[in-house]
Amino acid sequence: MTTGFFNRKDILNVKSLQREEIEEIFNTARSFQEVVRRPVKKVPALRGKTVVNLFFEPSTRTRISFELAAKFLSADVINFSSSNSSILKGESLLDTLRNIQSLNADIFVVRDSSCGTADILSRNTSSSVINAGDGIHAHPTQALLDMFTVLEKKGSLENLNVLIVGDILHSRVARSDMEGFKKFACKVSICGPVNLLPFYIKDLGVDIFHNLDDALEDQDVIIMLRLQSERQEKGFIPSVREYVQFYSLTEERFLRKKKGALIMHPGPVNWDIEIASSLKREIHPLILEQVNNGLCVRMALLYLLSGRHEPFN
Amino acid sequence: MTTGFFNRKDILNVKSLQREEIEEIFNTARSFQEVVRRPVKKVPALRGKTVVNLFFEPSTRTRISFELAAKFLSADVINFSSSNSSILKGESLLDTLRNIQSLNADIFVVRDSSCGTADILSRNTSSSVINAGDGIHAHPTQALLDMFTVLEKKGSLENLNVLIVGDILHSRVARSDMEGFKKFACKVSICGPVNLLPFYIKDLGVDIFHNLDDALEDQDVIIMLRLQSERQEKGFIPSVREYVQFYSLTEERFLRKKKGALIMHPGPVNWDIEIASSLKREIHPLILEQVNNGLCVRMALLYLLSGRHEPFN
Amino acid sequence: MTTGFFNRKDILNVKSLQREEIEEIFNTARSFQEVVRRPVKKVPALRGKTVVNLFFEPSTRTRISFELAAKFLSADVINFSSSNSSILKGESLLDTLRNIQSLNADIFVVRDSSCGTADILSRNTSSSVINAGDGIHAHPTQALLDMFTVLEKKGSLENLNVLIVGDILHSRVARSDMEGFKKFACKVSICGPVNLLPFYIKDLGVDIFHNLDDALEDQDVIIMLRLQSERQEKGFIPSVREYVQFYSLTEERFLRKKKGALIMHPGPVNWDIEIASSLKREIHPLILEQVNNGLCVRMALLYLLSGRHEPFN
Repeated sequence: MTTGFFNRKDILNVKSLQREEIEEIFNTARSFQEVVRRPVKKVPALRGKTVVNLFFEPSTRTRISFELAAKFLSADVINFSSSNSSILKGESLLDTLRNIQSLNADIFVVRDSSCGTADILSRNTSSSVINAGDGIHAHPTQALLDMFTVLEKKGSLENLNVLIVGDILHSRVARSDMEGFKKFACKVSICGPVNLLPFYIKDLGVDIFHNLDDALEDQDVIIMLRLQSERQEKGFIPSVREYVQFYSLTEERFLRKKKGALIMHPGPVNWDIEIASSLKREIHPLILEQVNNGLCVRMALLYLLSGRHEPFN
Repeated sequence: MTTGFFNRKDILNVKSLQREEIEEIFNTARSFQEVVRRPVKKVPALRGKTVVNLFFEPSTRTRISFELAAKFLSADVINFSSSNSSILKGESLLDTLRNIQSLNADIFVVRDSSCGTADILSRNTSSSVINAGDGIHAHPTQALLDMFTVLEKKGSLENLNVLIVGDILHSRVARSDMEGFKKFACKVSICGPVNLLPFYIKDLGVDIFHNLDDALEDQDVIIMLRLQSERQEKGFIPSVREYVQFYSLTEERFLRKKKGALIMHPGPVNWDIEIASSLKREIHPLILEQVNNGLCVRMALLYLLSGRHEPFN
Repeated sequence: MTTGFFNRKDILNVKSLQREEIEEIFNTARSFQEVVRRPVKKVPALRGKTVVNLFFEPSTRTRISFELAAKFLSADVINFSSSNSSILKGESLLDTLRNIQSLNADIFVVRDSSCGTADILSRNTSSSVINAGDGIHAHPTQALLDMFTVLEKKGSLENLNVLIVGDILHSRVARSDMEGFKKFACKVSICGPVNLLPFYIKDLGVDIFHNLDDALEDQDVIIMLRLQSERQEKGFIPSVREYVQFYSLTEERFLRKKKGALIMHPGPVNWDIEIASSLKREIHPLILEQVNNGLCVRMALLYLLSGRHEPFN
C-alpha cells in the first residue's frame, strides 16, 4: 500500500513535509476511507500502542476525531485536558510530558493556545508528536484534510486557484493551508479586513483582496474561515454586519463563483456570518466530507508515525 | 435467540414501541443477564461499532450504564458532555450531530434538558438514536428497565396494579412508565401533591391520589419518584416535612402494603424523604437490581439497534 | 510466575500487607516491566473485567497510571470524578458505590481527600478496592512503587537507611513509605519543620531531624516530599525561602550525600523548592523511573486482585 517513503517521528507543521510524504499520507488516508465505511470499522494496526490526547485548549471536534481515528486502529487512548491537569499544581508542561512518556505512551496529540508547544514537546520526547493546533502558528492535520478533500474532488491538487477568506491574522488553518497548497503549485489568494491580515503579509507571496466580490472570480477552491466572536469584542472589526457585507458568502456571490468551485470551511460554521444559511443544503455536505476526510487523514498519520509500513489488514 | 421482529432505527419513547418489540427487548436483556455475570463480561457483538454518549445534561449513572453496556458488547465509546462541547462556540445541536455522524458514529445516546431533542436528532441522522431522557418528556430506557424488573420478579406484567408516587409533573420516568405498563393492561395510579401533577391529568386515564395512605392498598408495584430539591425552592411544595407526611414510604406504610408488592425507585434515593432509611435493608436490594437490569436492557437495545439479529456469541 | 500466595480482596494500606505478599507484588511487577517495553503492550489477563476509577480528589497522574495499567491488561476502564458525580445530587458515597457495583464492576480504584474512604468502601462491596490515596492517611501504591524502585536499583531492600524529607504531617506518602520500608528492616528517619511533623511523632519509632544538613549523612535512600503551596498560605512554614534554606536538596548538599544514595520524589517536583533545578539532569531520570515502575506495580496489583494466578500470556 505504501512505498515506505514516510519515515518521520513527528507532524509539527505542513511546511517541513515533502511532497512525496504528503502524497503517501493521502494514499494511506484513501485506503482508510474504505475501512471507516465497513460495518466493522476496526483494524488491528495500532493494537498495544497508546495515543495520548494532550489538549490544553478546549476542542471537542478535533479531540473526538483523533480519539476515533486511534480507536479504529485499535490503539488505547488517554484523554488529558488542561481543566483536570496537574498543570494546575504548578507542574511545567515538559515535566507533564516526561511523566506521561514514562507511562510508555507512543504518540502524543497536542493542542495548545501557545505557538510552538508541539515543537518544544517533540524535541523533548522520543515518542511521536502530532500538532493538533498551536496558537496562531500551525494546524497541519486541518490543512492536510483540506488538501485531501480537494484532491478527492478535483482529482489533482496541481495549479489550482485557492482563496482563503476571513481572519487570516489569527488563523493557524490559513497559515498551514497556504504552506500546503503552495507545495502543489497552487496560486493562493487571501481576502479579509486589513485589521485581520498579518503584518508580514507581503512576504507570503499571495494575492491580497479586501473584498470578496473582487476575489471570487476564477477561484477553484474557496476556504471560508470561522469568525471568532471574540474578535469583534476586541475591536478587530467594526461590526459583524459590516463583516458580512464584505466577506460573507451570500447567495448572490455563490452564483458568481466559478463553476465547480469548492466551498470549504474548517467548522463549526457561523451560518449567516461566513456563509448564508440559505446555502446550507448546497454547502454543508462538502464541509461534512471534510470532517470524514479528517478522520481518515488522522488515521493515516497515526498509522505512518507508528512505523507500520506493511498493509494494515 | 431473537425472532427478528425488531427492526427499528431509534428508541425515542415507550409509546411507539409495540408489545412484541418490548417482549423481544426483554428476551434479549435476559440473555445478557447471564453474560454480565460471567467472569469475562465481553461479547464481540458490536465490535467495530461506535456508540456516542451525547449528554447535554449531567448524569453519571445513566452515562456509565450505557458506557459499560456498549463496552461489554465490544463497541467503541465516545463521551461528549456539554461542559466541554463546541456548543459553547455557538454551534447548533444539529450541526454538532452531523459533525459527529460524519465521523462514522453508529448509535447516539442522547440526554438533554429539553423535550424533543432526541426526536429532532433522529430525524436528522441515518444513525440510530436512543433517548436517554429529554426534559420532562420521556425516559424510555428507565421505563423498560422498570418493566423488566417487574417481569423478572412477578413472572408476568399482565394486569398488575401499578402506583407511581411523587413529582409526576416533572417526571419523564413517570410518563414513560405509564405508557409502558398500560401496554400490558396494567391499572396505573398516580399519587402526589396537586402542584406536582400535570394539568392534563384527566386525559391520562389513571386513578389519582393525593395521599399515599389512600393509594397504597392493593398495589402490586409501587414506584417512588425522586423529589428534586429544586422543586421545594421553587415553591412547588410547602415543605419537605409536609411532603414526607403525605408521600413518604414510612415503616408504618410499608407494613400496610399488599404482600409481595415491589417497591422501586429510579435512584438516587433521598433516604427519609421518599423512603424511610430504616427500610433501606429491605428496599435497597431491589433498587440495585433495577440498576443491573438497566445495564442488560441497554445492552439489549444497543444490540437490537445495531441490526445483529443472530445469536451474539 | 507467582506462588499463589497472594489472596486478597483489597489493597487499602501497606501496613496490613505481609512481606511475602509484597514480594509477590514485586515479582509480578517485574514481569510486567518486560510487557510495557514491548511494541505491543497488551496482555489479555483482565479481558472482560471492569476497573472503575473513583476519583473524588483531582489527580491526573495517578488516574492515568491506573487507566493505562488496566488497559494494558485489556480491562474496560470507567472514569468517574467528583466534578461530574451524582454526589452533587446529594447521593451518599456508599449509595454511589453500590450503584456502580450493581453495574458489575470488578475493581474500584478510589482516591478521596478524607481518611478512611477506601476502608469504608471495601467493607461495603464484594468487589476489590485499591486505595489510590485517602486524605493524609495512606497511599499504598506510591509506597510500593517507591520500594520497588529501590529494590530494582539496590538489589535488596534489607537494612537500608531511608530518609523522608519535607511535610511529613500532611503526607500519606510518608506514612505509607515508613510502614513499607520498616517491613524490610530499614532504618527510617524523617526530616522537616516542627510544624510539619505529626504530634504522634515519638510513637513512629523513627529518627527525627530538623535540618537536612544533619540528616543527609549515611542515607541510602532520600525521598523528597512535595511542598504543597497551600501549606505556606496557611502559615505552616514562615516562608518558602526559609524552607529552601533548611530542607531543599541543593547542589552543595547533593555532593555531600552518601555515594550511590538514591534521590526520589513522588512528583510533580517543585524545582528549586524541594530540589535545585540545576540537579534536574542527574535526578529526574530516577523520578521518571518511579513513574514507570508505578505503572508496573499497578498492573501487578490489578492482576493479582483479579485472582488470575496463572501466567498472564
